[in-house]
Amino acid sequence: MPTAPSGALPNIPWEDRPSDSSAVLWRSSRNPIIPRDLISRANSIFNSAVVPFGARFAGVFRVGGPTPVMPLAAGFSPAGVDWKLDEATIKWEPTDDRVREIQETFVHAYDPRVTWLEDRYYVTWCNGYHGPTIGVGYTHDFRKFYQLENAFLPFNRNGVLFPRRVNGMYQMLSRPSDNGHTPFGDIYLSESPDLIHWGRHRQVMSTRPYTWESTKVGAGPTPIETSEGWLLFYHGVLTSCNGFVYSFGAALLDLDQPWKVIARSRDYLISPQKQYEQVGDVQNVTFPCAALLDEPTGRVTIYYGAADTVTCLAHGYLDDIISFVKERS
Amino acid sequence: MPTAPSGALPNIPWEDRPSDSSAVLWRSSRNPIIPRDLISRANSIFNSAVVPFGARFAGVFRVGGPTPVMPLAAGFSPAGVDWKLDEATIKWEPTDDRVREIQETFVHAYDPRVTWLEDRYYVTWCNGYHGPTIGVGYTHDFRKFYQLENAFLPFNRNGVLFPRRVNGMYQMLSRPSDNGHTPFGDIYLSESPDLIHWGRHRQVMSTRPYTWESTKVGAGPTPIETSEGWLLFYHGVLTSCNGFVYSFGAALLDLDQPWKVIARSRDYLISPQKQYEQVGDVQNVTFPCAALLDEPTGRVTIYYGAADTVTCLAHGYLDDIISFVKERS
Amino acid sequence: MPTAPSGALPNIPWEDRPSDSSAVLWRSSRNPIIPRDLISRANSIFNSAVVPFGARFAGVFRVGGPTPVMPLAAGFSPAGVDWKLDEATIKWEPTDDRVREIQETFVHAYDPRVTWLEDRYYVTWCNGYHGPTIGVGYTHDFRKFYQLENAFLPFNRNGVLFPRRVNGMYQMLSRPSDNGHTPFGDIYLSESPDLIHWGRHRQVMSTRPYTWESTKVGAGPTPIETSEGWLLFYHGVLTSCNGFVYSFGAALLDLDQPWKVIARSRDYLISPQKQYEQVGDVQNVTFPCAALLDEPTGRVTIYYGAADTVTCLAHGYLDDIISFVKERS
Amino acid sequence: MPTAPSGALPNIPWEDRPSDSSAVLWRSSRNPIIPRDLISRANSIFNSAVVPFGARFAGVFRVGGPTPVMPLAAGFSPAGVDWKLDEATIKWEPTDDRVREIQETFVHAYDPRVTWLEDRYYVTWCNGYHGPTIGVGYTHDFRKFYQLENAFLPFNRNGVLFPRRVNGMYQMLSRPSDNGHTPFGDIYLSESPDLIHWGRHRQVMSTRPYTWESTKVGAGPTPIETSEGWLLFYHGVLTSCNGFVYSFGAALLDLDQPWKVIARSRDYLISPQKQYEQVGDVQNVTFPCAALLDEPTGRVTIYYGAADTVTCLAHGYLDDIISFVKERS
Amino acid sequence: MPTAPSGALPNIPWEDRPSDSSAVLWRSSRNPIIPRDLISRANSIFNSAVVPFGARFAGVFRVGGPTPVMPLAAGFSPAGVDWKLDEATIKWEPTDDRVREIQETFVHAYDPRVTWLEDRYYVTWCNGYHGPTIGVGYTHDFRKFYQLENAFLPFNRNGVLFPRRVNGMYQMLSRPSDNGHTPFGDIYLSESPDLIHWGRHRQVMSTRPYTWESTKVGAGPTPIETSEGWLLFYHGVLTSCNGFVYSFGAALLDLDQPWKVIARSRDYLISPQKQYEQVGDVQNVTFPCAALLDEPTGRVTIYYGAADTVTCLAHGYLDDIISFVKERS
Amino acid sequence: MPTAPSGALPNIPWEDRPSDSSAVLWRSSRNPIIPRDLISRANSIFNSAVVPFGARFAGVFRVGGPTPVMPLAAGFSPAGVDWKLDEATIKWEPTDDRVREIQETFVHAYDPRVTWLEDRYYVTWCNGYHGPTIGVGYTHDFRKFYQLENAFLPFNRNGVLFPRRVNGMYQMLSRPSDNGHTPFGDIYLSESPDLIHWGRHRQVMSTRPYTWESTKVGAGPTPIETSEGWLLFYHGVLTSCNGFVYSFGAALLDLDQPWKVIARSRDYLISPQKQYEQVGDVQNVTFPCAALLDEPTGRVTIYYGAADTVTCLAHGYLDDIISFVKERS
Repeated sequence: MPTAPSGALPNIPWEDRPSDSSAVLWRSSRNPIIPRDLISRANSIFNSAVVPFGARFAGVFRVGGPTPVMPLAAGFSPAGVDWKLDEATIKWEPTDDRVREIQETFVHAYDPRVTWLEDRYYVTWCNGYHGPTIGVGYTHDFRKFYQLENAFLPFNRNGVLFPRRVNGMYQMLSRPSDNGHTPFGDIYLSESPDLIHWGRHRQVMSTRPYTWESTKVGAGPTPIETSEGWLLFYHGVLTSCNGFVYSFGAALLDLDQPWKVIARSRDYLISPQKQYEQVGDVQNVTFPCAALLDEPTGRVTIYYGAADTVTCLAHGYLDDIISFVKERS
Repeated sequence: MPTAPSGALPNIPWEDRPSDSSAVLWRSSRNPIIPRDLISRANSIFNSAVVPFGARFAGVFRVGGPTPVMPLAAGFSPAGVDWKLDEATIKWEPTDDRVREIQETFVHAYDPRVTWLEDRYYVTWCNGYHGPTIGVGYTHDFRKFYQLENAFLPFNRNGVLFPRRVNGMYQMLSRPSDNGHTPFGDIYLSESPDLIHWGRHRQVMSTRPYTWESTKVGAGPTPIETSEGWLLFYHGVLTSCNGFVYSFGAALLDLDQPWKVIARSRDYLISPQKQYEQVGDVQNVTFPCAALLDEPTGRVTIYYGAADTVTCLAHGYLDDIISFVKERS
Repeated sequence: MPTAPSGALPNIPWEDRPSDSSAVLWRSSRNPIIPRDLISRANSIFNSAVVPFGARFAGVFRVGGPTPVMPLAAGFSPAGVDWKLDEATIKWEPTDDRVREIQETFVHAYDPRVTWLEDRYYVTWCNGYHGPTIGVGYTHDFRKFYQLENAFLPFNRNGVLFPRRVNGMYQMLSRPSDNGHTPFGDIYLSESPDLIHWGRHRQVMSTRPYTWESTKVGAGPTPIETSEGWLLFYHGVLTSCNGFVYSFGAALLDLDQPWKVIARSRDYLISPQKQYEQVGDVQNVTFPCAALLDEPTGRVTIYYGAADTVTCLAHGYLDDIISFVKERS
Repeated sequence: MPTAPSGALPNIPWEDRPSDSSAVLWRSSRNPIIPRDLISRANSIFNSAVVPFGARFAGVFRVGGPTPVMPLAAGFSPAGVDWKLDEATIKWEPTDDRVREIQETFVHAYDPRVTWLEDRYYVTWCNGYHGPTIGVGYTHDFRKFYQLENAFLPFNRNGVLFPRRVNGMYQMLSRPSDNGHTPFGDIYLSESPDLIHWGRHRQVMSTRPYTWESTKVGAGPTPIETSEGWLLFYHGVLTSCNGFVYSFGAALLDLDQPWKVIARSRDYLISPQKQYEQVGDVQNVTFPCAALLDEPTGRVTIYYGAADTVTCLAHGYLDDIISFVKERS
Repeated sequence: MPTAPSGALPNIPWEDRPSDSSAVLWRSSRNPIIPRDLISRANSIFNSAVVPFGARFAGVFRVGGPTPVMPLAAGFSPAGVDWKLDEATIKWEPTDDRVREIQETFVHAYDPRVTWLEDRYYVTWCNGYHGPTIGVGYTHDFRKFYQLENAFLPFNRNGVLFPRRVNGMYQMLSRPSDNGHTPFGDIYLSESPDLIHWGRHRQVMSTRPYTWESTKVGAGPTPIETSEGWLLFYHGVLTSCNGFVYSFGAALLDLDQPWKVIARSRDYLISPQKQYEQVGDVQNVTFPCAALLDEPTGRVTIYYGAADTVTCLAHGYLDDIISFVKERS
Repeated sequence: MPTAPSGALPNIPWEDRPSDSSAVLWRSSRNPIIPRDLISRANSIFNSAVVPFGARFAGVFRVGGPTPVMPLAAGFSPAGVDWKLDEATIKWEPTDDRVREIQETFVHAYDPRVTWLEDRYYVTWCNGYHGPTIGVGYTHDFRKFYQLENAFLPFNRNGVLFPRRVNGMYQMLSRPSDNGHTPFGDIYLSESPDLIHWGRHRQVMSTRPYTWESTKVGAGPTPIETSEGWLLFYHGVLTSCNGFVYSFGAALLDLDQPWKVIARSRDYLISPQKQYEQVGDVQNVTFPCAALLDEPTGRVTIYYGAADTVTCLAHGYLDDIISFVKERS
């Protein structure tokens, strides 16, 4: 049985900043760390969520296949870079009879996030139920998975849980959307006493015209608690004449009133500039879904999907990132 | 202090079925009962909700004006036909400090419904908060009004409460939408322990291709409890080459599992066929928001907005309507 | 058994040109001659096709109902104005086993035309088969109807047969379209040796920018053979900022090469100017589907749908119409 | 040869405010004063510009016909209500050889304004030149008309001249647009030393969300000079789910810096509420193009097009209108 | 004079499956076998059709050039990999005078298929005639080409003939479309007694939601007759937020009722994963137009266009492909 | 103080035509000559304008950054290939008080052109003023920059000045547009006596259907005066199913009536075929903004943006280009 992850993560996947770089975040030289065809019949593996799991790492992965329905798969890695994914996709055990009702109309599942919360790993994902909405489930071991009710009505995407209650209530970020390639999207916060019923919805952040985040914004990895506030990595999208471009930046949210933005960088941290980010099933996408932190060293490693095709890593230092967010705000 | 309305409503506004008609629902000869300019500076009064209120009737009204923001107004009527509306629009008292937060970004309020529930009149409406969503409030006297949290994340419209708890939980129908003239829309049901947090969302009814309800459907008046199930009047929209056409029909929902449809009429009950329904600020709209029932006689009177401009009445008998729904299902 | 209609039609429905009018075509003072609710449960009766039938008149009618699927109904009239329609919609008998295949996916049927051709009344209509296309059938008596193969692949509308073969081949006009409220459309001609296989497709007429026929054009009634060419009434559509406007005009096609336009009026003959043409299920529609001719007097009577709701008549003289087409060409 | 109109216009068309009305602007009981078919072959006469002309009135009229190209026609009236229009449309004499170049690609001409400026009547209109732009011309007698260069590049509409120079420069309002049914539009001001070359373009007024002017705004009649500023009537458009709705209001612009708005009413003055404004070639349009003022009495009469079909009058008092603009600002 | 190709094609272009691959279809290591600039002034050479031609290979090629109109060109190859294309594009000789009529409005020609049928090589292609439709012609020697009538009305693309009559009738697959970058499309079958008149149109396959073929599907190479049915390679398109993605899969159609699908793989065979498929004039396109079979060995080689820029090869074994289609169905 | 550039430019950046090429224009082997990150925090440097500046070269550069607003920066280069850009973006000094008014609403600035005209370097660019329009300014030294009035009303892009007056008037090409990713666009010419007021607008060139320039065309570098006419390089755009493709070609305009096209090549000169043109922030873009000429040798070097990310060079000979334009016209 797992216990709460401590703040130290000495085996965090890591590469030092290249000597010729002064970037706040830099890419792994091993990118993409997960190729599109790691497992048989996979078309793509991306937008995936990783957490420390004992001495190793575990994760839930978005796997696109040649077959229609997009599923999620679990995986493990000794060092967070070299992954072994289950060929069988995750089967969700309903936590009560009523959850079976929403399972009957299963359409697809994608863009997972994983959060250690109280006593287990919660998974949230984009769950098809007459349109996309936020699925919620949990696992203790990344082998057996249990499904709760969907958090919201359709249409919604990018539901991200906070790693602890705030003011006694569970907190979830999400991005209300429509039923297509939504050309708008703000980040909202909702709270819940029981992870089933949600309310007190607040807008957290909107888009900014004429920028890398002018079309929509959505929460990325589980927010990281820092003394300066909740550090939130989030994606922003602009619409060029040839489609969407997904970059990502960061913001700091108030620790006690997390719908309030303390600081938000005007610059992106990463935009699609490498071949594996620019070319693939969807061009020009960098999409973060997980972040690891080794508190003693301040090392941060971000897992992000590239071009909706492969999975990549970026590295940085917590203090640098926080300074960047505050100074460029 | 008001008490629960009894099932008898002998003063229900009423006209007998015209002798040359065999229609299940027929229009009042006094339509429109509320003209567009009943109060000064009103451009339109429509999509409004009426309930018995002691020996009289009270209601919450959508009032469009020459001034920008759409507000709600309260009104009273001795017999439900001749209305007096407050010139001042409703001012919502927040029920706690956090409700003030959503009041700060007030944009507009429209399409109210009123439901007697337990010990007061609850009002739901389309409430602008970074996009349309479902506002919730209550009143005891239609003079002082109190606002609760919005029920859902944007984007949502047509939130309708059930008049009692089911399985111990409050129930609300709604129609998730987008931020424009939404060209899609199904009816969903959500439940809540406290009218603040909502969950266990279920799709209730979708559209039907090539019919009067092929583009979207939305709940109308508060559902009426009958021995055959919850009687729900709802609007359906088709898209002609010259825009939307709003008609309305009815369905029966399971008493204990109200997300399950028992019967649903394939015919509409009313479609825009009268000049006051076909011509106005928005052509070809009939949109029901309230229904009164006199149980002893089975008389049903529906208040519906016409052409987004005026308010009208239609009459029928409960048994006829239920038979119609079941036979044409 | 019917025989070929002679050119004389002394009982043609008729009203003289109003004394204060110099119009080429004038409306019947009895318009609409068929109300929207002539038969029970009808929502609308429009875009319908009438032919002489012995001493009376018979027709195939587009009937919109409160129930979803749009069907066709047959009807009879002693004088062409006072109609009796069958409550039961037309049931098509397949002419061979393969026609059954296309009947299995029946969706809807609308906008019929009827043409006496060789030895029977052929009916063409917009037939739903994975999208709109041209259905073909025939009747001898307007009681029993037989269905042939669809003439074309989807997506097509407004298929109109010529009343005799030209150069030994059957001829059909049609308007290729898409699967929605098509914002484009030209008139084409196709020929067939057997009414089953069609080929040698030719464009006949396209739209004209900045006119009443700038968005699309489609053939109306069966072309009338005259010494000057085939007289074709056709509808033209413009797109105002508030939707489509359907007017109609006329053209003359070459007798032997009917894909060649001899003359085409730049003016419309009728545009939506009467309340019953401007207000209804679809605003601003006049849509002709049938034309009768009494050769000895030159009287022409056109049946046209108004506002997609009711059926109307317009009258004129053949010579005036032909002069109009030639002079305004 | 005409001379400058004096401020007194005792024969201004006029009806007193109805006794049961407190409206700032009221409609003529004779509306529509010009029917759609005043002249032969006219389909519609609307969006037309009238000025005092000696003891009578003269104007330039938008005439829609059954024939394709939309032209302008001149007309005269003894009292401003009963009009006689030329059957022949206006033929523009080029003022130099280069103007001939733009005449060669003539497409259409519509929505004229007429302004007495210095020594003649200037006409501006929407002139088709590879897209709509602002045509400029003049007349001394409404019989012979002379054309200057187009003021701007396409795409533009609603060009309105000021009745005198400001700071030595000619001034023109316009509404840059696109080449279709433009879903956006602000009012701009440009200045010119010679009525040929234009520059120093400034935005004057934009749209307001959630109001009767949320989609676009455009200048109406020639601005009226008052001690409070230039009084500008202008149309505003909202987009309902069934199309555009054109209302009109008013604003005051700074006398010396006319791109600065001093006051702008939040209420409309007239919105489409009469059958002749709600039903016609384009539903729900009221569109002002001319305003007359009798200075001694303060009477103002506005000519506006209704439903893109007919021409109407509205009356009011200058002081009331100015007060309305300032108080509701 | 050519004779019917036998089933043996020992000189089929071929590479063995790479030792590290278990794919059903694998790419040639020489891809792209035809570069975009093989002939002078060519911008791209793709979506091209190849057949055995005596001891060599011949083909009809889509050549995009810097000059506007897209033409077809013929070419020859000794081994099917190294191609020599005619610099002059194909000139079609009309087979009768009426075909000249459709040649007069020639717009463009693209996406050819070539089929040996009875006694000659038939060519079908997307032929511009007031919109795209299916051109039909033939050649004996790939030097002189003869044109027949277009098979269908516009709008249509991807017309593919069967290599023999079925039930005495010629058979053609096609994909009805609209006049732009059609966002829908199913495969239909039509039959003809004479290759001029076509009828008995049947829908064969539609799209599948949430898959690589969710937007449209279209027939690829000439179907291959096997004991299990007609093997049809076909392209499927999904719409990502950055545009269309063209993959291809396969299906088996009934030998005698070829509009009936026996089996259809849920997996694609090839999707755009190589640089030359992902980057080019149109990103992410793999589009098969021809397939060769060597019956004795079961070797299949597919010619497909990549990125609308170059031409590529893929190889596989007939039995493997059939098994794949049946097992993944 | 600079003086007029002479026609000789012996230090023009140059590479000879590759020996295996017969292209009229060929790319530099050093492309991209300016990488996306030449200066710190730059995301992209492209669509930039270069001129000879004494013995060196100077330019104005479009710099995209991670921060929102797009600015212009100045730069210098000894040989035109190795550039040093100012980290600080250009600050425009208003030439009079009224110019300050348009500076107050500064939004963005991009796609500059630089032209030596009479006695200074004029800069034109796409300037955000309630939508894109043409900014105008000048510099003597590329250190201090002065801003004039915007030339036109919004919406406009690609304003390009001629290097001398024609018939005594300044001349500017531009491309009227809308406020988004405009899907249309022709090249127009306007003239001005003072660089402030503009008029006599003429359409110069429109798009050509089914070609590389079927969606829009826009002027590129400053036109080059030759004995054959003004040589204009211009971009043309087609719309593939996956977005816009920007190529460029050339035309010759009449020396005295520069709105008249003497010759216009049907072929493009350059289309996106290299990785750096096909992959980047916007795929498939080649966009020329400056051209240098060494008259004695006839060498022409074009600066063009690639993929909206980097800056590139292409070379050719003036005579070859003119011949190409005339022969392929």
